[in-house]
Formats: sequence, structure tokens, C-alpha cells
Amino acid sequence: MNLVDIYMQVKSDVTYIERELERSINPESRELYQSSTHLLKAGGKRIRPVFVLLAGKFGDYNVQNLAHVAVPLELIHMATLVHDDVVDDANKRRGRDTVRTKWDNRVAMYSGNYILATALGIVTKLPNPEIHRIFSKAIVEMCKGEIEQVRDLGNWDQGLRNYLRRIKRKTALLIAISCQLGALATNASADVVRRMYHFGYNVGMAFQITDDILDFTGTEKQLGKPAGSDLRQGNVTLPALFSAYQGSTKDVFQEWIRTDEINSRIEQAIPLIHQGEGIAYSQALAERYINRAKQALADLPASPTKKSLMQIADYIGGRKF
Amino acid sequence: MNLVDIYMQVKSDVTYIERELERSINPESRELYQSSTHLLKAGGKRIRPVFVLLAGKFGDYNVQNLAHVAVPLELIHMATLVHDDVVDDANKRRGRDTVRTKWDNRVAMYSGNYILATALGIVTKLPNPEIHRIFSKAIVEMCKGEIEQVRDLGNWDQGLRNYLRRIKRKTALLIAISCQLGALATNASADVVRRMYHFGYNVGMAFQITDDILDFTGTEKQLGKPAGSDLRQGNVTLPALFSAYQGSTKDVFQEWIRTDEINSRIEQAIPLIHQGEGIAYSQALAERYINRAKQALADLPASPTKKSLMQIADYIGGRKF
Repeated sequence: MNLVDIYMQVKSDVTYIERELERSINPESRELYQSSTHLLKAGGKRIRPVFVLLAGKFGDYNVQNLAHVAVPLELIHMATLVHDDVVDDANKRRGRDTVRTKWDNRVAMYSGNYILATALGIVTKLPNPEIHRIFSKAIVEMCKGEIEQVRDLGNWDQGLRNYLRRIKRKTALLIAISCQLGALATNASADVVRRMYHFGYNVGMAFQITDDILDFTGTEKQLGKPAGSDLRQGNVTLPALFSAYQGSTKDVFQEWIRTDEINSRIEQAIPLIHQGEGIAYSQALAERYINRAKQALADLPASPTKKSLMQIADYIGGRKF
Repeated sequence: MNLVDIYMQVKSDVTYIERELERSINPESRELYQSSTHLLKAGGKRIRPVFVLLAGKFGDYNVQNLAHVAVPLELIHMATLVHDDVVDDANKRRGRDTVRTKWDNRVAMYSGNYILATALGIVTKLPNPEIHRIFSKAIVEMCKGEIEQVRDLGNWDQGLRNYLRRIKRKTALLIAISCQLGALATNASADVVRRMYHFGYNVGMAFQITDDILDFTGTEKQLGKPAGSDLRQGNVTLPALFSAYQGSTKDVFQEWIRTDEINSRIEQAIPLIHQGEGIAYSQALAERYINRAKQALADLPASPTKKSLMQIADYIGGRKF
């Protein structure tokens, strides 16, 4: 079963959100429109809008209302991708040139700002100030996560807690509020709103851990970049941290860390991590998050929506690319 | 009379805002705190907070309330400066290393995002949704202005209207809403709110035109960078545009434009612009905006606040650096 099948329940409404996403970028300024919709038009899983829609099924479902939270959530996600590509000097995303490649870093930075600002413009039109606060708090946390990721580049002296906090801010939080806001915007009960947040948070954590595993285990074709790219850019993720501090590879890594050679040994480190126990450890942790996500929904009555969310959780836990 | 004297009326409250500005940046993450407060601690004219406070005198003045709009306005201004320094490869601002110099471009981009996000976090706590919308609309327009400035780099084929729209978005709008929001946040009358917006808009236009003049006429010591820096970076401002299309230098410039040599003739162009009629034309236009700003206040009853605003307008129209 792939994600497309799971999406079936909300398919036509995802198409609606897709249209609203394109309409959200004002075409008045031609260059800005082109650079800002460049990534948008490359498509994507639209997982945040899908979570908004599914969560909305627990309340008074209304796709127009839900679009007002789904569109800014996806725009915020895209703004961070455009900025991340500047920071990572990335040339390709979703098989297309990145904004910084097609234009330049300046245009990418300002286009990212513009996409973010557009998202906030939509948010401020929502009547519920609680939603405004949830958005702005999440953005502040995401910015912290981005800075932390830069700070932690090439830093092997970081614990599991540091990694988990970083991926919470970087990834899990936006997915958590996607689920939360879908429920909140349709006036679902406070209990459902809370459950949806926890579901999204745990799914988001599993999603990022899986991403970090795939960066080592995926093929270049699946990833669109060589395996081990994260580490080459200095991003020390869970499989790498585990390999350096536990299991059969520990001694080699500790020696490299002690002699300060570790960051010049990356090409040797990548196959060691791939073969070591760090991958299995990370998979087990991702599964624990998936189980917690499903636990958050367990007490809700059976429904097609609950089933879809459970399936998405399983899909994310088991995805291969 | 210098700006400090004019500020006297609101001096203690500017100090209060200054403290709130520093408190607004959460010190939880040490690196982020340092990079984000780096520019803040370099000081600055705080002209936007001053306008908020003065405008607030027309309503139910309350410095705590006014801080909730003054702080995010100044933070937004600072976020754009941090990002601008990335785009301009600038190494110095206000006599200190820029964030991108002290850290790097990545940290500067994300710190800018963080400062902006912090500003929005404060805005969303305000109860009046109209204020949220004014902020978000202004940010969208500012982003457009920033992109337009990148697009227009080295472009001599742009009219006065294009230049004016760009500086409106880049500078005038944030000053306009500073004045507007100070009045709005203290429940001043709709007439005063409207007048304050127009006052701020016109002062802001004059402010940027004067900035663009000073870039040619200032000394390296006054400017903190060599004269003509804007043009060297491709930013074709009003004195340059005038020199290229009107007056005694027109023929030389038109020949350079026709032969596509203009952007390799910048070192010759700078003294020509400095000596040509473009400076006087720009000064006259700045004065027209100052007069319009004062006109916006003309019908208000005499008061120390009105007098201070008039003096600031005159100061901005006549400032030498």
C-alpha cells in the first residue's frame, strides 16, 4: 500500500488545497511569482495538508476553512526548504533545479521570506487568535532548530537528547501542529485536539528519524543524491551518533574523535555506519514513536479517518524512500 | 538641533522599549541569542519605536501597550538588515562586524528568520486582529521590495515610478505603519490613524531618498563605507537615474547604456552623478515628501507631540548623514 492509496479519502480536497496553494502566491510581481512557485510546482507529498484534512474529519469538516490552515502550513514548509537549499548549497530538489540554482542565493533567501510572509498573511485572516499563536510559536521553534542544526554541524560531541530536540523543532513540530490545527479549525473537542497534536508529533519524529536512516541506506537513485550526504554536510544524525558511541564501531569512531580526525574520515565512516548497529537502533526508535502515535489515537472510536491515520503512521514507520 | 534633542519628549520610554527589545530575544539558546542580539546591541536610531511612541500620544498613551507594537517593528527592521547584509556581502554595520562576518551567512539567514519569527510571536499576542493584518501585509510588501531590489540590480532601464515603488516597500511602509500602529494601539481616532500613516509614509520616502543622496555625497567616515557603494553593488538609485536620463550628464550616460558599458563605467559614473543635477533633483523630491508629511499633520491641534513630529520631519529632510 502506498501513500497515494491512503490519500484516497481526501483526494479531491487535496486537489482543492493544491489549487489554493498556487492561488496564494500573488502573481503581481512576475519574477517573484516564478521563483516562489518554482518549488511549489515541483509537487510533493503534501503530507501536512493531508494531516490537516484528516484531522478535520474529527470536527465540523469544511475544506474551505481547512484550506486556511493547510495552505500556510505547506507554505511554511516550502519556505524552509528554499532557505535550507541556500544553506546546504543544494542544486537539486524533487528532481528540479533549486531556486538558488535557477536564480541565485539572494533570490532564494528573499523568495523564502516572501513565501513565509504570504503564509502569515493568510494566518492573520483567521479569526481565532489561538491559531495565530500556535503558528508563530511553531515558527520560532523551527528557527531555533535551524540554527541548532548549523551550530551542530560537524559536532560529534552531542547526545541523543540534543539530536531529538533538533529534529522535534526541525520536523516534528510542524507536523504536530498540522494535525492539531486541522482539529482545532473544525472545532473538534479539546481531547481530540490534544490527541492529534501528540499523534503528529510522534509521527513527525519517526518521519525524520526514517529520513536520517534512509540517507545512509537509500540508493543514489532513490535519494536523488549520494548516500551519506547528510554526514558529508556535517549533519551528524542518529545512525552516526549511535555508531560513534555504542556497538561494534564505537572504538574506531572514538579514536577518530579523540585525534580530531573524525570530520576528515567521513568517507570511511559512512560504510561503517551503514553496516553497524546504528541503523537498527534508529529503526527501533522510529518504531517506538510510531507506536506512541498510534497510542494517541487508540481510545478514539473506530472510523475510516482513524484507520487512515493509523495506516499513514505505519507507512511512515516502514517507508523505504 | 539633533535627533537626540527631539527624542527628549519620549526619552525614558525609548529606554523602556530598548530593554523590552533585549528581553524579547529568548536567551535559552546561547548561540542564537548572541547572533540575534549582536545587531541589537550595536544600537541604532530606533526611529520606528520613537514614531510609535509619539503617535501614541494622540490616543490613550500607555508605554506597555505601545511596546507590543514598537518592539516587533524594530525587530522586523533588524531582521531585514541581517538578511540584507547577507545579500550585500556586507562586513560592517553600525561600526561592528555584521552577523554574517562574525558567524557566517547561514547563521545570519537563520538569525534573521528567528528575529522575524520573534517579532511575529509578539504581534500574535496583541488582541486586535487588524494590527495582525497590518503587520503581515507590510511584511509581504517588504519582501516584494527586497526581491525587486535584487531584480533591479544593474538595471538602468527603470523609471522613476519603479524606484519609488521599491523604496516605498523597502523603507517607507514600515515607518508608515509605525506611526499608524502607535495611534491605533492607543485607540486614537480613525482620522488621526490615517494622518499618522500618511505622515510616516511621506517621511519614510524622504528618509530613503536622503539615504540614497548621502551615498553619493557623504564622506567615507560618515558613511562607514566608500561613497557610491550602492551603485557599485548595482543598486541604481534616484540620483543615478536622474543623471542618466536628464540634465547635463544625460548624453554620456545614454551612450554608455546604448553600448552596454554602463555597469563597467561605475567608477566614472559616481563623480558625474555627484557633480550633476541628480543630487539637487533628489533633494527637491525629498523636500516635497517632507512637505506632504507635515501637511498630513497640519490640521491637528497644536501640541508638543505635533511639534516633535514636525521637527523630526525637518531633521530627516535636512540630515547630512
